[in-house]
Amino acid sequence: MTARITQVTARDIRFPTSRQLDGSDAMNPAPDYSAAYVILETDHPEGHAGHGMTFTIGRGNELCVAAIESLAPLLDGQELDAAFADMGAIWRRVTGDSQLRWVGPEKGVVHLAAAALMNALWDLYAKAEGKPVWRLLADMTPEQVVTLVDWRYLRDALTPEDAEAILERRLQGKTERIAEMERDGYPAYTTSAGWLGYSDDKMRELARAAIAQGWSHFKMKVGADIEDDLRRAALLREEIGPDRKLMMDANQVWGVAEAIANTAHLATYDPWWMEEPTSPDDILGHAAIARAVAPVAIATGEHCHNAVMFKQLFQAGAIRFCQLDSCRLASLNEIIAVLLMAEKFRVPVCPHAGGVGLCEYVQHIAILDYVAVSASLKNRVLEYVDHLHEHFLDPVVIKDGRYMPPTAPGYSITMKPKSLHQHAYPNGSAWRPANRGVQVR
Amino acid sequence: MTARITQVTARDIRFPTSRQLDGSDAMNPAPDYSAAYVILETDHPEGHAGHGMTFTIGRGNELCVAAIESLAPLLDGQELDAAFADMGAIWRRVTGDSQLRWVGPEKGVVHLAAAALMNALWDLYAKAEGKPVWRLLADMTPEQVVTLVDWRYLRDALTPEDAEAILERRLQGKTERIAEMERDGYPAYTTSAGWLGYSDDKMRELARAAIAQGWSHFKMKVGADIEDDLRRAALLREEIGPDRKLMMDANQVWGVAEAIANTAHLATYDPWWMEEPTSPDDILGHAAIARAVAPVAIATGEHCHNAVMFKQLFQAGAIRFCQLDSCRLASLNEIIAVLLMAEKFRVPVCPHAGGVGLCEYVQHIAILDYVAVSASLKNRVLEYVDHLHEHFLDPVVIKDGRYMPPTAPGYSITMKPKSLHQHAYPNGSAWRPANRGVQVR
Repeated sequence: MTARITQVTARDIRFPTSRQLDGSDAMNPAPDYSAAYVILETDHPEGHAGHGMTFTIGRGNELCVAAIESLAPLLDGQELDAAFADMGAIWRRVTGDSQLRWVGPEKGVVHLAAAALMNALWDLYAKAEGKPVWRLLADMTPEQVVTLVDWRYLRDALTPEDAEAILERRLQGKTERIAEMERDGYPAYTTSAGWLGYSDDKMRELARAAIAQGWSHFKMKVGADIEDDLRRAALLREEIGPDRKLMMDANQVWGVAEAIANTAHLATYDPWWMEEPTSPDDILGHAAIARAVAPVAIATGEHCHNAVMFKQLFQAGAIRFCQLDSCRLASLNEIIAVLLMAEKFRVPVCPHAGGVGLCEYVQHIAILDYVAVSASLKNRVLEYVDHLHEHFLDPVVIKDGRYMPPTAPGYSITMKPKSLHQHAYPNGSAWRPANRGVQVR
Repeated sequence: MTARITQVTARDIRFPTSRQLDGSDAMNPAPDYSAAYVILETDHPEGHAGHGMTFTIGRGNELCVAAIESLAPLLDGQELDAAFADMGAIWRRVTGDSQLRWVGPEKGVVHLAAAALMNALWDLYAKAEGKPVWRLLADMTPEQVVTLVDWRYLRDALTPEDAEAILERRLQGKTERIAEMERDGYPAYTTSAGWLGYSDDKMRELARAAIAQGWSHFKMKVGADIEDDLRRAALLREEIGPDRKLMMDANQVWGVAEAIANTAHLATYDPWWMEEPTSPDDILGHAAIARAVAPVAIATGEHCHNAVMFKQLFQAGAIRFCQLDSCRLASLNEIIAVLLMAEKFRVPVCPHAGGVGLCEYVQHIAILDYVAVSASLKNRVLEYVDHLHEHFLDPVVIKDGRYMPPTAPGYSITMKPKSLHQHAYPNGSAWRPANRGVQVR
């Protein structure tokens, strides 16, 4: 008797983070970090359930929940063994429904929902195998990994044969790299000090605390007002000194010419990268900015909606850092395609994190990248923000500014039942009128 | 006392078109043409209500309806005079909600919903002015038109100053072009004969009927199987003779190399354009295909989700025909930006139509383009499909293969109350079990 998925449920989970302006930036002044959260229940004899989510910043989370419900029939009743034997086919089914594809395709709400569902299926697969997701994938053969990817639109940048050859080469030293990760962890950077809504004093205080904790890379938000940006950059550079890395993030607020001009001003403070200088859809714009502001590097990816867009960012030489998002790309099938293309084009991958759950996800991705794809830590740091980890059963473990590899089976995203209960929107206790505070639109 | 929007309602309207395979193509084998339909009720003394929609092909329509409801508070209570005086500001508000933007941005379900809402607001504006939408816009000054557009991400391709200069130049001869349109109409082409699900006999029969009706441009679907495509192309070319134009539409099914190879085969039958040869997101892929298959022209746009993507298609020389969609771009504010960029880059605009309601919309766009922006009919034909027009109060009028300019106030999209009632999904009479037939997934 084979086990099946017996029920697909979606929940609207929101955290009222806008009350403290955590996560504030020039485009997103008042986010409420949220999860469109999926549970795949099964009749597996060991009682496994797959948990997954996509990340949003508040309003719109209800649309991702609705889209998960629209996609759910594509997974409901699915035999687990058949799914795990061909995750590539399941991916094409979940992203390829001909009618639902129209309202994407492979972008926006339906793709975020596909991410949540496929993230949950990967969690279920890893739990069934008794491994953390990064290890489940690191243990696959190159041939198995290549079958996970939908190559239809990618072959002009990377063929499955070339991808397999990359993975074959990385078999050498894999065991040692796994041991290294388990011993030392994966290098990280912190955004905690640099939110736009924070006062100068709060920035200084948080920067000092982060230095004391051993952090060496610091990111600040820019883009609200150039004079303000320059003052805050001076302040942060003063606090961290000349040798620690300072990254800047404009969150898409500029046009191409503005991005070039403002980056030139801010170059005084030696940014390691300028992140999201303009529209996430503007591949050629990023390429023009990259040419104009070198040696400042351009980074983007958290709003890059699929592998076809990343393919073009690589082909155009538009980015020097790839910041893929674990909830915007439709799970590991698509993320692996991006990791492989990034390796071919020699672009380091530094996944986007923060929010809620993103740190839990991206540790698997970065460690997998090092162990099985890139075999390099050069110019690679993984984003870390110290928010909301207390809601997860297996939260990230940070030691001396590094992510320690997850060891529990699954994808590290299962939330505590109490957290799910209290943050259910709009009726959980966190959202009751007495707790609600002022809502900012 | 100024009138206001008093209520925003959204309805899920679907037509069971998959029963006859109308609209079938290689990517979309069984569409149920649908509308996420908006009504903006007002307290205007003349009882005006704005009607608008976005188009989908079935499942997923419920998500657009939900997204309209999520965006509705941004328009509810809006003063009409203030809105009409600054439609550009309203556009930025509807597309710029910082939390909802995350689940786009400017793409997928939320952007389709923004299109429906803004289409309804344009309908309301035109009804209040007693003019059809194309005429309302043609009567604006160049300065007024330029303020409709959000220039943030477009200035590297076209500045507002250059846009205004284009519009200024087109003031000359505008009156004559309006008179010409009112007398002769706008040239059209038909896709009715070429759907992939039709038999050879049905294709021949429909082609002959279309020739008898005076059509000179014919589009066929390709991409399911190249041998089949070649046979059907031979058949259709035989029916229409060497002088009528034959266009081909692959609906995104190929990768870049496949698109190049298959277009080379099909070039035997002298296609005027090859439409959607690959992923709609693949700007650089379209550019590579365009270089390889010239003189066959590449066309795309029905899935091009915003003006930033069109900007790059123009900058990269990726398309020779721009097929913008009236329901995927967020209404006339964004469409006007694309018309102006297309004019600057000398790319003719041939909007995507068919489905339900799209023909009603695009006639306004094509006529506006001719009257106020491009002043040219060269290489311009407007898609026409003879489906579902009977549901509209002011359906398109076709005379000798040309669209005759709409004369009724508004944007021509108001559906008959009976049609709305019968096609309400899932409880309208068209969807009752006895009428339902076999549902194809």
